[in-house]
Amino acid sequence: MTGTAHAPFTADDYRARMERAARQAADAGLAGLLVAPGPDLVWLTGYTPTAITERLTLLVLAAGHDPVLVVPTLEAPDAAKAAGAPALTLRDWTDGKDPYAATAGLLGAGGRFGISDNAWAMHLLGLQSALPATSYASLTEVLPMLRAVKDAAELELMAAAGAAADRAFEEIRTVRFAGRREREVGADLADLLRRFGHSQVDFTIVASGPNGANPHHEVGDRVIEVGDMVVLDFGGLKDGYGSDTSRTVHVGEPTAEERRVHDLVREAQEAGFRAVRPGVACQEVDRAARAVIADAGYGEYFIHRTGHGIGVTTHEPPYMIEGEERPLVPGMCFSVEPGVYLPGRFGVRIEDIVTVTEDGGRRLNDTTRELVVVD
Amino acid sequence: MTGTAHAPFTADDYRARMERAARQAADAGLAGLLVAPGPDLVWLTGYTPTAITERLTLLVLAAGHDPVLVVPTLEAPDAAKAAGAPALTLRDWTDGKDPYAATAGLLGAGGRFGISDNAWAMHLLGLQSALPATSYASLTEVLPMLRAVKDAAELELMAAAGAAADRAFEEIRTVRFAGRREREVGADLADLLRRFGHSQVDFTIVASGPNGANPHHEVGDRVIEVGDMVVLDFGGLKDGYGSDTSRTVHVGEPTAEERRVHDLVREAQEAGFRAVRPGVACQEVDRAARAVIADAGYGEYFIHRTGHGIGVTTHEPPYMIEGEERPLVPGMCFSVEPGVYLPGRFGVRIEDIVTVTEDGGRRLNDTTRELVVVD
Repeated sequence: MTGTAHAPFTADDYRARMERAARQAADAGLAGLLVAPGPDLVWLTGYTPTAITERLTLLVLAAGHDPVLVVPTLEAPDAAKAAGAPALTLRDWTDGKDPYAATAGLLGAGGRFGISDNAWAMHLLGLQSALPATSYASLTEVLPMLRAVKDAAELELMAAAGAAADRAFEEIRTVRFAGRREREVGADLADLLRRFGHSQVDFTIVASGPNGANPHHEVGDRVIEVGDMVVLDFGGLKDGYGSDTSRTVHVGEPTAEERRVHDLVREAQEAGFRAVRPGVACQEVDRAARAVIADAGYGEYFIHRTGHGIGVTTHEPPYMIEGEERPLVPGMCFSVEPGVYLPGRFGVRIEDIVTVTEDGGRRLNDTTRELVVVD
Repeated sequence: MTGTAHAPFTADDYRARMERAARQAADAGLAGLLVAPGPDLVWLTGYTPTAITERLTLLVLAAGHDPVLVVPTLEAPDAAKAAGAPALTLRDWTDGKDPYAATAGLLGAGGRFGISDNAWAMHLLGLQSALPATSYASLTEVLPMLRAVKDAAELELMAAAGAAADRAFEEIRTVRFAGRREREVGADLADLLRRFGHSQVDFTIVASGPNGANPHHEVGDRVIEVGDMVVLDFGGLKDGYGSDTSRTVHVGEPTAEERRVHDLVREAQEAGFRAVRPGVACQEVDRAARAVIADAGYGEYFIHRTGHGIGVTTHEPPYMIEGEERPLVPGMCFSVEPGVYLPGRFGVRIEDIVTVTEDGGRRLNDTTRELVVVD
């Protein structure tokens, strides 16, 4: 549940991240950053509260003082145990007191702060009310690439998560599909991810036959049949870093059309991957994959962006989407996952996590992309 | 993971809840309500997205039109399957488009809206930017009691969740504690809750010996010893409604002091329970329990409020805390859970979920509150 226990980072690592974040904030013209429990806080401090409640927990990175973690008194002992705790000051507040007044004193009057996307609206409203002259902006809007570039230690953890996902696929392709419910195969996938070291399973999509045409179908009670295409999309966190893999398998022999659509998506995925190199705009990855599908006349059936970033979450910036002009930078990690969805019939999606290297891209999961026939 | 599949509510039930919420909003001088994924949305519509992401999903209840659920195109098929979907209009938006502009048209210019506490700050900022003349307030601040009063069908589900938690305690008191890690007993508790019908386990606190003196300790690697007091606090959701029970057990024979502190907390819990009746202010429940502990000289060791509401979440208003002057109303459900925490030594907490009846209170879990000796 927490990244705290697993990640091999020290207080110095977290101090360096907080300093880097504060510097980037200043460069972006911000007075500071307000970081709520969730991936930003884990990445900056190693701290995950045992539960996210209405009680305010907020990391304040602002000019003029060292990092301060505002935390409910009850949770202060846990916060003090976080790996990053030595690099910050804890300021606790007691039930019944006003945590916004306590926080406001750390912000100073005026200025613009970046605040975690997933901070609760009630906390933002509390701060807005306590400090009417201060303005706020979504952290992803002002510093979208804060966590995007991974260092060597992070990339090692990402690669280990991808390798575990590969092993899960190698096992799942040997299990029986025909006659079992999507839900059962999904449970198998979750067990496999855990067996290969995932502490958290975020999704195990098993979308068979017509369900495959809904890219957000998870699992259902549909019984998988011989002749089904089955989209598998599975991932989670291993040692605090994410995996996310999609493969589409076929139960029994595929038809010529099914094979053709699968080949097309594989080719699109390869084209997206080949577009990856430093300096290229994110949207070029989307365009490269999309062009292959559009040229084959299936453009209207590729109904989502080509990819999303991944790191301490399985879903974050950068996004590989038309309009995203930011350049790829070595160390960024994201999915390349084009798909074709034929309503009422079937879907195909193939997805790898790719990291940007000095001269191209490297897949962090790399099990076969051929159309695998299962029983 | 979702309340969708379990709760036996119909589109008419959800329509009635949405109408009631809209009426309460109007009575509170609000232009409407903006409801994000989470417990409010489940309660109002039966809908839980498979994942909460940065993509905007928002229920708009505003004068002049029927309820509208703004939803990402990819998730629209799932939303359409929610039990409450026939009682609302879906308005989907596609990746790359501006969802705030789409939502702004539904809000009208100006006015004050209640917004879910846990709505993402980035979404609130998006709306604030799209509609600068509109103001927002936390839903819990403006309509804290929206979900607080449960109807007969809801109370039945709450009682069933409490009965399941009672069964879990009756089993856990028979397992071995001495020589096992807190984490292992916690896993047993989670298994038991699931075996007795919980679809979601929110917490299984096993706080042994000195760990019991930290009211927010969850489980750790400490090996439980003969002579330990062990605080057990466990709960989750069964069929979409919550349980939350605490009992403190002792490994082997307790000392006279341990027994005295346990008796004191039991007496305080009983006093809190006896204070429950319609019309009484929430804070009176806290005062009644706290007075018992303070009178015995342990006031400084009771370091949290006496209780919190429970329903489709295990933690919500109303709060039994000094300063909460709102009156108890029949159908409200909340915990009564005083505790004494002796730093470095041990803690005791006893907790039942109580619902307000026409003439008093009724415990929804009711296993023994005597000090149970375990092996």
